[in-house]
Amino acid sequence: MAKPLRIALAGLGTVGAGVIRLIETNASLIARRAGRTIEITAVSARDRHKDRGIDLSGYAWEDDMTAMAARDDVDAVVELVGGADGPALTLARNAIAHGKSLVTANKAMIAHHGLELAALSEQARVALKFEAAVAGGIPVIKGLREGAAANAIERLYGILNGTCNFILSTMEDTGRDFADVLAEAQAKGYAEADPGFDIEGTDAAHKLAILSAIAFGTRIDFASVETAGIARILAADIAQADALGYVIRLIGIAETDAADGTNRLFQRVQPYLVPFDHPLAHVDGATNAVVAEGNFSGRLLFQGAGAGDGPTASAVVADLIDIARGDLGGEAGAPFSIQVAEMEAMPPAPSGHRLGRAYIRFVVADRPGVLAEITAAMRDAGVSIESLIQKGRAETEGDVLVVMVTHEGPESGVREALRLLDGSASLKEAPLVMQILGD
Amino acid sequence: MAKPLRIALAGLGTVGAGVIRLIETNASLIARRAGRTIEITAVSARDRHKDRGIDLSGYAWEDDMTAMAARDDVDAVVELVGGADGPALTLARNAIAHGKSLVTANKAMIAHHGLELAALSEQARVALKFEAAVAGGIPVIKGLREGAAANAIERLYGILNGTCNFILSTMEDTGRDFADVLAEAQAKGYAEADPGFDIEGTDAAHKLAILSAIAFGTRIDFASVETAGIARILAADIAQADALGYVIRLIGIAETDAADGTNRLFQRVQPYLVPFDHPLAHVDGATNAVVAEGNFSGRLLFQGAGAGDGPTASAVVADLIDIARGDLGGEAGAPFSIQVAEMEAMPPAPSGHRLGRAYIRFVVADRPGVLAEITAAMRDAGVSIESLIQKGRAETEGDVLVVMVTHEGPESGVREALRLLDGSASLKEAPLVMQILGD
Repeated sequence: MAKPLRIALAGLGTVGAGVIRLIETNASLIARRAGRTIEITAVSARDRHKDRGIDLSGYAWEDDMTAMAARDDVDAVVELVGGADGPALTLARNAIAHGKSLVTANKAMIAHHGLELAALSEQARVALKFEAAVAGGIPVIKGLREGAAANAIERLYGILNGTCNFILSTMEDTGRDFADVLAEAQAKGYAEADPGFDIEGTDAAHKLAILSAIAFGTRIDFASVETAGIARILAADIAQADALGYVIRLIGIAETDAADGTNRLFQRVQPYLVPFDHPLAHVDGATNAVVAEGNFSGRLLFQGAGAGDGPTASAVVADLIDIARGDLGGEAGAPFSIQVAEMEAMPPAPSGHRLGRAYIRFVVADRPGVLAEITAAMRDAGVSIESLIQKGRAETEGDVLVVMVTHEGPESGVREALRLLDGSASLKEAPLVMQILGD
Repeated sequence: MAKPLRIALAGLGTVGAGVIRLIETNASLIARRAGRTIEITAVSARDRHKDRGIDLSGYAWEDDMTAMAARDDVDAVVELVGGADGPALTLARNAIAHGKSLVTANKAMIAHHGLELAALSEQARVALKFEAAVAGGIPVIKGLREGAAANAIERLYGILNGTCNFILSTMEDTGRDFADVLAEAQAKGYAEADPGFDIEGTDAAHKLAILSAIAFGTRIDFASVETAGIARILAADIAQADALGYVIRLIGIAETDAADGTNRLFQRVQPYLVPFDHPLAHVDGATNAVVAEGNFSGRLLFQGAGAGDGPTASAVVADLIDIARGDLGGEAGAPFSIQVAEMEAMPPAPSGHRLGRAYIRFVVADRPGVLAEITAAMRDAGVSIESLIQKGRAETEGDVLVVMVTHEGPESGVREALRLLDGSASLKEAPLVMQILGD
């Protein structure tokens, strides 16, 4: 058997501890599959003496994680520190500069600095791998980069944040409101004390920006992801969607758009209404799922646990096994499937001309004329209404919910209608618009 | 850019034509992703003059496909001829012997001769790749071999035959009977004129045997797959399953079993009752889906089109892109994840001690004492009945259906009960037993 792949591990949180547990538990299996053993040489974390439930005595300890990048007895560095910049990025740059392959679970770092790191790794002819950065244990980076490599991807979308999916599917199952379920999720550790990163869609946007780059060969453009979160969704929205044949899911969606003659990249993270008969409608709890629609493959779906120490460790070690096998993703590398120099800088696509059906929910005063005002605005903006329901709202005495679903039309129409209604005394809060996921 | 990967293509049926169309349509995309172009050098098929809707004039024609293996201007051979033995196998052996990589969609050949071919390819240090042999365009071979490589797989199961899934889900949607839907599927080209290979489970068993070898590191053992088909399923079974909260799907399932102290391999293809809340219950039409349960990843699901020229071509060309990139699956190869020499020859596991719940349907004469006879047999065999329904059967005047679901117990109990009932004048045909898919 070939000599071991020697790794250094920076960051010993739950995922770091999971990686060590996995490498120890499945050691002989990994060796047979990788063709050689994977050995942990050195580890590093902020606090050496914290009890992590694992025995670190067999591994060299580095107080300064950056020093690991220079060790002669290390072939690959695993970065599990987190944070887009700071020590994680310093370590990543240093590891590559020292000719080490880098494996990371850090979606923020890849979304912000992935191209720089990929270019460095291509130059240094080492691997840069980040399967664990997107959708936990699901091999979706590999699925897109290699499994679907023969296809022009026509559309990419999925459920990319387990916390939001847990909250939405729990609201669905229990009829409870957002704040209530969020509090439960926080108590159970499914949501952070500061949940903004998840529930505002930022985490999903990081992952979407990474997947877009691989699927479409475009330079990562996290800043242009149109992002909306789930905090404004009411139990009543979920009940209403259900009555109409839909569930609500936070969906990240990306496709290229050449409507104005220029190749543009459309990227959005938003709550969508998903028809019951769509596979994503059955993705419940903290599960993630990604759909890629290829011009030859048709619709491919990858589904599994989107987070957690075991699944994330599974993805990290899969990357290490690829490296141990010598499969670096092409002789000159190409972490994003094509080399960085060839990735296209596509300007962001506007969304106004996108055709679709929308769900719009208004909270209005319970008085005469309100429906006439709303429907007149829709008419004036050229929006055709498929169905409209008005119902009392238990939560807020005296207010009334008006829910409508539009016929297919450009998104700009709905926006124009809402602009016409802006400032109306009839509206108690800004309307909530959610697109309906189309085929 | 590096020099082209030059391929020869044997077999120009719908899949072969699809591969050519894909390589031509997505040529520039493939070149950017693979780091070099993929060029078709030579093609071969039985009939040179058949109209395939594609222009073959740019490719050398070989009347004798085996001659392609020896061409100096060919780096990789794509075998799309089909058949476990005969010309396909001869070509495969020859290609490897001449130092060419081999890509095939031939599940029968891999199920029967995969180990021989893998050993030859490991020796010759060429790639042997067969993504297209299992589940069409879904990258499940790659998902298991690489994506889930860090895990001990605890259970592997899925929907592996699109024809059966189309028939079962159409029966479900329309209430029609098996023979009727099969005739429609044949008319539409979803089922072969001789459908036995699909509906008896043989095709699914080929795929399961291949996946088992990768998942469990065991030598392929197609002969030991316990196989039953779908021909005996009645519209009434589907309706009854629905009333109980299940759909019926032909499931291939494999796991290791050490109940008697020896590591054994359990492999089965059978119709199962799948609970509504299981992801496989929502897999409709000609779709395939594979679930792998890893000891760290948890449940991974891969889903997509299980057949068709586009999806199958997508898988074939993905394999070619891996080869063009130089990712041969480890420096010394290992088409089944671990090298053939290290694969374990696991004896087949018996199923009698397997615990589960079963659905049993009897067609009985409509006369007093029949239920007493059946329930006495269950009691005498120690089978505990969870629910029992007796209803008239529209299809056969005078006969009656008795459907029961058992509590969890060993499969041997049900078999013993049926043995006790064997030859009973009350039973109009052999009872149909289907297991209920457990968590």
